[in-house]
Amino acid sequence: MKFRAGGVEHDRPCFWISDHGIVLIDQRALPMSVDLIRIEDTERAAEMIRTLAVRGAPAIGSFGAWALALAIRRGEDPETVKKILYETRPTAVDLEHGLDLVMKWFKKDGVDGVLESAGRFYEETIETCRRIGQMGSHLISNGTKVMTHCNAGALATLDWGTALAPIRFSSREGMDPFVWVSETRPLLQGARLTAWELKNEGIRHRIIVDSASASLIAGGEVDLIIVGADRVCVNGDFANKIGTLSKAIAAREFGVPFYVAVPWSTFDRECSSGEEIPIEVRGGDEISFVGEKRISPTGSECHNPAFDVTPAKYVTGFITPDGVISPNDVKNKIK
Amino acid sequence: MKFRAGGVEHDRPCFWISDHGIVLIDQRALPMSVDLIRIEDTERAAEMIRTLAVRGAPAIGSFGAWALALAIRRGEDPETVKKILYETRPTAVDLEHGLDLVMKWFKKDGVDGVLESAGRFYEETIETCRRIGQMGSHLISNGTKVMTHCNAGALATLDWGTALAPIRFSSREGMDPFVWVSETRPLLQGARLTAWELKNEGIRHRIIVDSASASLIAGGEVDLIIVGADRVCVNGDFANKIGTLSKAIAAREFGVPFYVAVPWSTFDRECSSGEEIPIEVRGGDEISFVGEKRISPTGSECHNPAFDVTPAKYVTGFITPDGVISPNDVKNKIK
Repeated sequence: MKFRAGGVEHDRPCFWISDHGIVLIDQRALPMSVDLIRIEDTERAAEMIRTLAVRGAPAIGSFGAWALALAIRRGEDPETVKKILYETRPTAVDLEHGLDLVMKWFKKDGVDGVLESAGRFYEETIETCRRIGQMGSHLISNGTKVMTHCNAGALATLDWGTALAPIRFSSREGMDPFVWVSETRPLLQGARLTAWELKNEGIRHRIIVDSASASLIAGGEVDLIIVGADRVCVNGDFANKIGTLSKAIAAREFGVPFYVAVPWSTFDRECSSGEEIPIEVRGGDEISFVGEKRISPTGSECHNPAFDVTPAKYVTGFITPDGVISPNDVKNKIK
Repeated sequence: MKFRAGGVEHDRPCFWISDHGIVLIDQRALPMSVDLIRIEDTERAAEMIRTLAVRGAPAIGSFGAWALALAIRRGEDPETVKKILYETRPTAVDLEHGLDLVMKWFKKDGVDGVLESAGRFYEETIETCRRIGQMGSHLISNGTKVMTHCNAGALATLDWGTALAPIRFSSREGMDPFVWVSETRPLLQGARLTAWELKNEGIRHRIIVDSASASLIAGGEVDLIIVGADRVCVNGDFANKIGTLSKAIAAREFGVPFYVAVPWSTFDRECSSGEEIPIEVRGGDEISFVGEKRISPTGSECHNPAFDVTPAKYVTGFITPDGVISPNDVKNKIK
């Protein structure tokens, strides 16, 4: 995927490390503007996660790890920094996982070991997503119509994506997939980010409002649904962006296969079922304002849960870096 | 429902007749601004329906009838005007019904009879909606949590509403219902219009994104769903705003009653099942722009069906002006 930012052509979106600072694409400004932000302190790193300048479970896992590693290098207190970063977003388990890894590396190898390990973790995250793509590409034939939700692409995972990885992989293998992109209110990660990635990659797609999904599924316009996840439980229940459950229910109702593409870091062995997943409720202004424009009456409040939980029974399979597993197999295969 | 427009307090939103012209509240500008538009020619009347300055099945039925009646009074050719108005929106059967009534009155009673009948039709539409409210109010107890979609309120029906009528009626009877308002992308009739009506009426409510419906239904936060309809078939299938099907599927999945509130004019005896309903596909810019703000990449196209069809099996009952009937009874009770 090629795109220009800061006058230079890049092929890895999301963020990268340069001179011991993090250089981040501001996902809040996409697709109208491709802005780079340089992050050199902990508070700003936390703000980037909180305001969704960087988002997506694997991406914030690696971003959190790098932010903590660089803070340790600057001599800040690891436990304090970890706590600040951890509290930015409660639902995605990858962030917690990334922060825990850095603490382990630090205790074992000290400062230099931490930076080296954070770099390796970054590359491993990308390789993991490439393998998800390879494993999931077997589900896609020429012209397969795939529906996805939110953005689980390169922007959410450093490169390749989770849900988008099989689509991208099959496209590079010469297949010609088509993607239904649901816009993903309130913050429009589908319309803004997934569409931008697919356009850059030359993959055919159409944007729809989220609530059009069911009629496309009912009407035979969808061969396959692939979404990402923020946390997968031992029993196969999983949390993902609000709107995922609705697609899963319609998919089962009309016999359309429903897959969840995830690295092993998104499985949570501490979480036995979906009822235990903390669901982040964000501010109502994300709904009542689009940009600067207010769309609803003053005095009418909004309720804005950022995620929903889809029970395991709606899942056809999880596309992992080691192949597709059934929800019943999660408890045995979890790493 | 009291609101101010043009420096005067009104209690009937939507439109009214003054000095043989139609005075319309511009629903495109609500809720940020309450603008009145005076309509005195056919092309402008058609534009108002096409651009959704006036919308909602019963409202465009009566608006179309008045626009045709006034055109006949101005000496325009009835068949030509009828065709122009008819082609503005294909899905709602009420528009066709209103235009057919005027042609019948004209043939029977001439110009003066037409105007008198259009006035009676306007009042009957309001009375019909009041009766829908009365019949549906039995489904609502103190504190009942009702979910609705789009706007099927006074703005869509001259007064009272269809889906909102039982809520409004029960509220005036002293019940204290709570309403989940799904925003209804792309044009946000829920967030803009339903929220505005409920706020003016002092009825408790919260706005949600459309795709949050399923998790609220699954989580036991919804006692009852009531929506309107644009066309009901003889077999009980019906068309309504895009996003309705998704709620209906989730409702059945989690055992939540799902009602459709409709006047008899919305039943179409010529339409045997949902497959025969013409579905309007509107321009993609309604999705890619919110006001003047572009939200998706240039080069990424949108698919924008305005309605979906919900099969009869998902419907608990139709709330008609004469009581609640089951989908199986539509073919016997249809008027």
